[in-house]
Parts: sequence; structure tokens; C-alpha cells
Amino acid sequence: MTTKILRFLAEQQPSTPCLIVDLDVIVNNYNAMRNFLPAVEIFYAVKANPAKEVISLLVDLKSCFDAAGRQEIEQIIAAGATTDRILFGNTIKKQKDIAWAYDHGVRLFAFDSKIELQKLAQSAPTSNVFCRLLVNCEGADWSLSKKFGCDIEMARDLMIEAQEKGLNPYGISFHVGSQQTRIDQWDIAIGKTARLFFMLNEAGIELKVINLGGGLPTRYLNDNIASINSHADAIMSAMVKYFGNKMPLMIMEPGRFLIGNAGIIESEVVLISNKSYDENVRWVYLDIGKFGGLAETMNESIKYSIQAPGDGITGPVVLAGPTCDSADILYEIFQYQMPLSLKVGDKVLIMTTGAYTASYSAVNFNGFGPLKTYCI
Amino acid sequence: MTTKILRFLAEQQPSTPCLIVDLDVIVNNYNAMRNFLPAVEIFYAVKANPAKEVISLLVDLKSCFDAAGRQEIEQIIAAGATTDRILFGNTIKKQKDIAWAYDHGVRLFAFDSKIELQKLAQSAPTSNVFCRLLVNCEGADWSLSKKFGCDIEMARDLMIEAQEKGLNPYGISFHVGSQQTRIDQWDIAIGKTARLFFMLNEAGIELKVINLGGGLPTRYLNDNIASINSHADAIMSAMVKYFGNKMPLMIMEPGRFLIGNAGIIESEVVLISNKSYDENVRWVYLDIGKFGGLAETMNESIKYSIQAPGDGITGPVVLAGPTCDSADILYEIFQYQMPLSLKVGDKVLIMTTGAYTASYSAVNFNGFGPLKTYCI
Repeated sequence: MTTKILRFLAEQQPSTPCLIVDLDVIVNNYNAMRNFLPAVEIFYAVKANPAKEVISLLVDLKSCFDAAGRQEIEQIIAAGATTDRILFGNTIKKQKDIAWAYDHGVRLFAFDSKIELQKLAQSAPTSNVFCRLLVNCEGADWSLSKKFGCDIEMARDLMIEAQEKGLNPYGISFHVGSQQTRIDQWDIAIGKTARLFFMLNEAGIELKVINLGGGLPTRYLNDNIASINSHADAIMSAMVKYFGNKMPLMIMEPGRFLIGNAGIIESEVVLISNKSYDENVRWVYLDIGKFGGLAETMNESIKYSIQAPGDGITGPVVLAGPTCDSADILYEIFQYQMPLSLKVGDKVLIMTTGAYTASYSAVNFNGFGPLKTYCI
Repeated sequence: MTTKILRFLAEQQPSTPCLIVDLDVIVNNYNAMRNFLPAVEIFYAVKANPAKEVISLLVDLKSCFDAAGRQEIEQIIAAGATTDRILFGNTIKKQKDIAWAYDHGVRLFAFDSKIELQKLAQSAPTSNVFCRLLVNCEGADWSLSKKFGCDIEMARDLMIEAQEKGLNPYGISFHVGSQQTRIDQWDIAIGKTARLFFMLNEAGIELKVINLGGGLPTRYLNDNIASINSHADAIMSAMVKYFGNKMPLMIMEPGRFLIGNAGIIESEVVLISNKSYDENVRWVYLDIGKFGGLAETMNESIKYSIQAPGDGITGPVVLAGPTCDSADILYEIFQYQMPLSLKVGDKVLIMTTGAYTASYSAVNFNGFGPLKTYCI
């Protein structure tokens, strides 16, 4: 926890709920990545937190950017980055957005399908393209799916077709899964990607870059996560093992790792109740819930550490949000412990909430506005 | 489907995704409720769709309103309703919001716990209060939980305490579950509520109102739902059965029923792809997803009917949204059928999306703005 955030909360007494982001922590995380993975170019995944101050800071740090859509590209440009530092990384793009990005100088795109490749060939000719490879990794806390990427044979054919269509087959990307807690997954993904590099090499295509994606974890509740240097070691060992002395350039798209632990949400306890005399379940209702910025509590996937005032004696609670929606429950299956002395009006700190919170929040569900962010 | 919406889409060609709400359909639904449940006072659940035009229309129709929070009360007042038509129905309220509502003339509040009762006694003295009773109903398509309501013995004691604290014990509310498809559930809930009425009667408290909550369904995909008159019959039969000639006043809080089928979302197909040569799964990506307004696809709870252009020949698809989030998949377990001729750029209509869509949409996740609503 940063004392800077605590001081801000004590001095400014902002209305709750609110997210406070300590920009210094982002700088530390950025520098840690640069130290432990010096050969890796960083493309910040803007979707993790698109706050203006965050993007500006990363522009100043000379970061590159992974953008999900046109609006994010606009934000990055507005913050002063040149478009040669932008990857349009979403594999699901409207043709008109590709054309717009190309017109504004973006020359780096990702795709994972034949149709997307056709769009790129038409609206972003000669651009550098990544094909996203589907890898089957385990150990990610946030839902994995087959939504992105394609199989290795298809990826090979698509890259050959990319070249035929006048695009530059630039590299392969993958994603080990967001909040990846198992370092052994890097070996699986990099091994498979290396195989694709060699398959394409045999077809006469020399790829330049491996895009290692995101996945570097931040520390949530109970996460016995490996440190950045363990992840870096696992990545570099796999790179050496599979690529030997034919090492491609490396890029990564960290989001959660760069900003997750830079943010703390302050929330107020609105109500504490029991439902019956027989059943001794304590319900604690906060002024933030699933639709107010904590969307990643869906299926209780991400478990935030929550700090509440009070003496040491705690008991189990069901934690819920403030809306009239019966689905707006944060944790019911996983039993959180909170002080028995907790009372209405107490402020709690929801830790490590810098990533994937504010931008997810509903525009006005139940009349509650989106989560306000203060960058300090 | 309303021809008015189709004409609007054809003539105006709005950017997608967008939600079009036909106000005439709301009027029809409102009148249907008035016809089939003439003795029931309607309190529109604003959270279902807080669009200004919708609230104004319902003000003109002489509806009352169920508000989830201060901002909704502000919207209702701004639309011209007097505060005697407003129920502050959320059982999770900040004390300062109760005080604000009371200062602005709201005198009708719901609660389900001792602490909330204390807040009301302090900040809304002499107000009429509903205690929400926990009922265990089955058959609702949207997640049921124990988040709201309390057990019958606790409800009795709380209402006695309400009177002792100078509040007016006005009635009992319950909720059979949103999108309730089983009409037999009314009997269970009304029976239990009647028992509480009589328990309180024995304690010398004469309640005036039963708040039947929401739950009236709208028609989604495959829903073999009962008509409004079947629901009305079930409600009135149970009322007569349990209350006999001591019938209390009745109110309801419809949201989904009033506005669900008044809205259609138009969305564009952004991408269609396969993931491998072996596995013949067709992925269709729309420009709206779970975080763009279709939050109720969470766990595939609500299954919208989707109309796509093309000849009659269809095949199964996985339907996903446009964000870089692997959890942004609409339907994967339940297999939607879409035309084999479907292509990128085609417009699809997501039917019955007037309720619980636009206000849920994320403020700027992946840079995508909230869902735009046109009321016509």
C-alpha cells in the first residue's frame, strides 16, 4: 500500500466510491519490467486503465501502446505518442477503424482470421502484421476462452497469405491468460510459437518479432504469485531453449502488471444485516459492486484483498454491492473475513484495483455514475 | 417487432450499436397492466431503463416510480413527478441519501434490516415503510439470491420496531425474481406475505399495502412465458385465497415487463471466423457484447432473440462481443443458430432489449462508449 494514497484519502476525503492511482507505482513496475526483461519492448495495454494521466505518464516513459480500438488510439495520440508506437492489437476490428488508424499512421496490426486479414490487406496495405496463435494455457485467474487466436496450421497459412496480399508478416502473438499465476506456462506458449516460426521459415518467411502478450500477474488476495524476475527467467529460458541463437525481437503487452497494484478503491460500508434469526450469515453491503467497477468479481474470478478498520477479531461475511440487482454480489462462495466490529459508514480499502475497474463501470446503472479516478 | 423501429433504422441509419425504444409499446404494456390488474398501482422500476423520455412518458401516464437511488429520484423529479409518487425502494441506502430524499418530500421507503430501519427512523421520521420479505421462488431467469429481504419472524419484529420508532408500518414487499416464468410462484409469495400480515395484525399493526414487486416477464428467446392475464389471474386468485375480504391495497414495480419488448438493439457483425481446420465452430463477433449493454448474458442467463438477414439455412455459432476481453462472450454453451450466409457488415437485431441494457453498459471499456439510446 502506498502512503501517498493514504495521505490523499486522509487529506482530500473524496466521496466514495473512488479509485486512487499512485503514478509512482506504475513507474516502479515499468522500471522492474525494463530491468528484468531488458530486451522486451513494452506495449502498455491501454484497456487496463485508460486514464489520461496514466497514458501520459507512459508516453513520457517511452512506452509503446497496445490499443483495443479507435478511441484508445485517439487517446494515445492526444497524450503525445507518435503512431509508430501503437499496435492496434484487437483482432476484431471494423474495417472503417482499420482505415482510420492507417490514415493516422498506425502500421502495426494483429489478426487471427482470414476475414480480418482481408480487411487489413484492403485498408492497411504494407502494414506489419501479427497473427495471434491460440495457446492452451492453464493457471490464469481471469477467464480463458478460445475467443482469440487460431490454430498453428491456420496461422501458418494466414501468414503466407498475408505476404501474398502485400502485408508484411511481422510476427506471432499469443496470450497465456490474464493474471497468469503459473510460470511454466511460458514454456508451453513460447515452444508452440517457435514451432510456428520454423514452419514459416520453411515457407520462406522470416518473422521478426514475438509478441509475448500480457498475463504477468499482480498480487491479489491469497495469490502466491511468482515475482517478475521468476516470470522473466521463465520467459528468457524458454526463448533460449526454443529459439537458440535465432532470437527474434520481443514485445509484451502488460496491463494488469503495470497498473494493478498502483490503485486502491475506497468504498463505504452502506449496510450490515442478517436475513434471519436461524441463519447466522452476516451480509456486508459496500457502495461499490459488480456494476460499479468490480466486474472482475464475476464468478468470483478475481479476489481482491480488502482492508477494513477494526480490531483483529474477524468473522465471515457475504460481500455485496449497492444496486437493486440480485446478481450484484461480490463474494458469497468464497468466504471473506471482516472485523466483527465493522459498522455502517466505515471505509474499506479494496487493494490492487488499478487495472480493469474504472473503465468497466456501468455508465448509470441504478443511477450510480461511473467510478471516479484520481491519479496522484 | 415494431415497424416504427424498423422505419427509424432504415431512414436514420444510426451508428451501431444502438438501442431504439418505441415509446408506444411502453404505453401498450402500461395499459395492459392497468386492464388486467386494475386494482394495482404501478411503480415503474426506473433502473430498468432510466432514459429521460421513458420517465417523462410514465409521468404523463400517471405512473408512480420505484427508485434505486438519489440520482434516479432526481431524474423522476426533473421529469415532473411529485415526490408522493416515489418509492425509495432500494433496501441499501446511505443515510445521507435517505435524508436528502426526505427533505425533498419522499415519504415511502423500503428496508429489510435493523440497521436500515434505524437510518429511516433517524432521517425519515413518520414515513411509510415497507419491509421486504425473503421469499424462495423458483423459475426466474435472472439470478435469484438472498441479497434482499429477511425472514418472516425478523420482518414481524422489524415492523413492530418501526412503529415503536415512530415510522408508519405501511406494508410488506417481496420479489418473485426477475423474469419470473412460473405463475405458480405468486401463490407461494402472496401466501407467505399474508401470513406476515396476520402475524402483525395479532401484534396490533394493521398494514395497508402489499407490494408485489416486479418479476412479470417479457418474451425472450424460447421463453414459453405466460401472458399478462395469466399472471394477473394467478396474482388475484392468490390475493383472494389468502386475504379474503381483508384485501390490502396492491402495488407493483414492473421494469422488464413495461419496457423489455419496447426496445431493439441494432448491432453490426464485425468478424466471422474459425479457429482451426479440424474444429468446425463458427465464431460471430458483434459490435456489442457483455460490457456494451448485454450484461444480462452473464452466465447466459437472458437469451435474447436475434434476427439476422439471410436465407433460411442456418448453422450454429458462438456469439461474442468486440472487446479484447476473453470473458466477453455472449453465448457459447447455448448454441445460437445464424444464417450460413451471414457476412461481416450485416446488421442484426437483438430483440426485447429495452430493459437492463443501456444503463448497464461500461463507461469506456476498450474505448467503446456506452450504448446510445434513441426513444421514438
